[in-house]
Amino acid sequence: MKILIKNGTVISMDEKREKIENVDIVIENDKIIDICNNYNGDYDKLIDATDKIVMPGLINAHTHLGMSIFRATNDNYHLQDWLEKKIWPIEAKMTDEEVYYAALLSCIEMIKTGTTCLNDMYFGWRGTMKALLDTKIRAVMSRCLIGEDDDEGNRMINEFETMINEYKNIPNITFAVAPHGLYTCSKDYLKKCTDLSIKYNIPIHVHFCENKSEVKTIENKFNTTPVNALKEIGFLDRKLILAHVTYLSEDDQKLIGNNISFVTNPISNLNLGCGIADLVSYQKYNINIALGTDGQGSGNNMNLFKHMAFVSDLQKAKYEDPTIMEAYDVLKMATINGAKALDLDKEIGSIEVGKKADIIILDLNKIETYPYPNLLCEVVHNVESSNVDTTIINGNILMEKHNLLLNINENNLKNKIKNICEELKIN
Amino acid sequence: MKILIKNGTVISMDEKREKIENVDIVIENDKIIDICNNYNGDYDKLIDATDKIVMPGLINAHTHLGMSIFRATNDNYHLQDWLEKKIWPIEAKMTDEEVYYAALLSCIEMIKTGTTCLNDMYFGWRGTMKALLDTKIRAVMSRCLIGEDDDEGNRMINEFETMINEYKNIPNITFAVAPHGLYTCSKDYLKKCTDLSIKYNIPIHVHFCENKSEVKTIENKFNTTPVNALKEIGFLDRKLILAHVTYLSEDDQKLIGNNISFVTNPISNLNLGCGIADLVSYQKYNINIALGTDGQGSGNNMNLFKHMAFVSDLQKAKYEDPTIMEAYDVLKMATINGAKALDLDKEIGSIEVGKKADIIILDLNKIETYPYPNLLCEVVHNVESSNVDTTIINGNILMEKHNLLLNINENNLKNKIKNICEELKIN
Repeated sequence: MKILIKNGTVISMDEKREKIENVDIVIENDKIIDICNNYNGDYDKLIDATDKIVMPGLINAHTHLGMSIFRATNDNYHLQDWLEKKIWPIEAKMTDEEVYYAALLSCIEMIKTGTTCLNDMYFGWRGTMKALLDTKIRAVMSRCLIGEDDDEGNRMINEFETMINEYKNIPNITFAVAPHGLYTCSKDYLKKCTDLSIKYNIPIHVHFCENKSEVKTIENKFNTTPVNALKEIGFLDRKLILAHVTYLSEDDQKLIGNNISFVTNPISNLNLGCGIADLVSYQKYNINIALGTDGQGSGNNMNLFKHMAFVSDLQKAKYEDPTIMEAYDVLKMATINGAKALDLDKEIGSIEVGKKADIIILDLNKIETYPYPNLLCEVVHNVESSNVDTTIINGNILMEKHNLLLNINENNLKNKIKNICEELKIN
Repeated sequence: MKILIKNGTVISMDEKREKIENVDIVIENDKIIDICNNYNGDYDKLIDATDKIVMPGLINAHTHLGMSIFRATNDNYHLQDWLEKKIWPIEAKMTDEEVYYAALLSCIEMIKTGTTCLNDMYFGWRGTMKALLDTKIRAVMSRCLIGEDDDEGNRMINEFETMINEYKNIPNITFAVAPHGLYTCSKDYLKKCTDLSIKYNIPIHVHFCENKSEVKTIENKFNTTPVNALKEIGFLDRKLILAHVTYLSEDDQKLIGNNISFVTNPISNLNLGCGIADLVSYQKYNINIALGTDGQGSGNNMNLFKHMAFVSDLQKAKYEDPTIMEAYDVLKMATINGAKALDLDKEIGSIEVGKKADIIILDLNKIETYPYPNLLCEVVHNVESSNVDTTIINGNILMEKHNLLLNINENNLKNKIKNICEELKIN
């Protein structure tokens, strides 16, 4: 199968930082094989991108796919109250089937809003896995590991290893070890996570320093700083994905090495009163910053474009300086930096010959988004889901003209979700 | 003409704070004449609102319609640099015709995103007025007054009085006196504005304390605090609309009376590095807080739903407390508080019998916004323009199923806008 995307304006996100106009992109099977002007070879499928924007699919580097049923239900909760009083009691009742429908909705939401790859941390993994396969979205999968090195903890690890063994040969799926957090897992259990990361040669994905009180808890438990705690359990030597990181001392920031990425979740952090992460400082210490939505319970939606707008504006607000955190930096977080975080930057994150064809096409020619004299600024601040025209993942066209091309009945899905919300009494 | 909006879920924004399900709303000509269950009288036009949300149209209490051509071009500018180096030199070249097309696009953008009333401050008023009349949107109109009590200043006042005399009998149009700011107008000129406000019995609409440096400038110029400066020029005794107000001492906040409203412009303030207004404090002193987008140059878009999401989250961030600024408070800012600010609360701002039929209908049953177990939170955080199904202003259905029902060729308009951007070299 050969696809020609013709005559688009391309934001490639490669190192040359180019916006190139009137460009043709040729995809063969799962890969980009040519980027040129006036391609005149053969193709099976033509996508006319005239007056449209072609860019790499967005990468959601920290999310919980099963949480769509909690969408925008965070008003008036602090993080710990929200988890303990609202979310965890309901999650304890959720079946794999319920996780499947919730995750399926999230995956479709992502495809419709331009996300082509995600990094998930949840339970009910068979449900999530089925949703991933049904939608053909690219994913780094895990099974959230929480608690002690006891029977229950080891049961979760067994589940995770079962998942890896059963699904290790699926093209769009890779894995990460996902301990919930340093404050919710015992030291021994966290060290077992390091071992798993070594055994399977995969990254570790963990919540880290989401608010001030978590920082204190970690410091008390480990009797050292949070980053030194990571070192003690062996995480610092691994490819490491740290989600949230709203607070971290500069001394700790200096200890962050090349293998480590922070995933910022701006909307979630605001909604749960965790504050604004100091991304400008993280940039100063060359920390790779990726972008995540968190689940819809705290992040409200899976539309990374909306989260990009917040990233940009929040730093300008924090520093009362509009000249920082320019649009291109934010675009990097949602694309190539996310790929680096997930150890997939050789495959995805930019439009380059040889990379996987994870590509989205934007139509900004709607009154609500017209004109766009500064394209990068527009993409970071104003894109809505209806501007996402086409989504291609691994060479598969999953959406065209904002119509999903998957064999999924959206109305049936919404009815299932409605019933789940009613049954679980979510409000 | 009688319209029946059948079976909707209504967020009425009246004082009873009710969300009511399965409600029929009857409109006759420009007014709401009945709100009931199972209406069985006659009607000319039926709108089925089953599974949809019916709410008052949003009110944009501070905007510059002519600025759509500058959409999302604010990256890397401080307020004063942005005005002096980027915006004002181009605006000086704009013709009434260019203002017309730019304002026309803004009005359509508003109708498509659920705004039914706006408070404009700009120049090229004949262009703006034509756009208002073409689109039938409700507006408080002004002619921006800036400078000294000299020939040029008096020419602007003459323009404004000409406008009032020519258009005083148009149903959807009222007026406000709009001095640009206390730092850009002389004291004598500002006092003339007070006289105009008295002569025509209309509000004063002015930029006020947009950033720290403006506060300092006002203090130096008037040798007193900003609110005492307002008193000195007679503004405090008038119905007063203060746009922005990102900084104001608590002592000054205490002096704000019942006639005065603040219009917060969260996205614009972030983009221009003006910081986060302390709305929680303003609430404490019972100041009426309305919501505005500012122009698209700094506010990026005219979609008040997007600005609502920022209002909510920014206060939670500022205070690191998710229990403040709940969804309903934000909805009030965008509806009934806006109506109060514009002295139109007897007519609009809520769905009540006897009020004007300024109503929008939301369809949240898209995958991207589904489910919505907490409706108010969803409306504040997640609504996109494509969720706005129907817009009714003064009893006129201006949009249905997100299709504009006005005799305007959107493609021609976009071409005009494209040419204007190219000619004026906007980037």
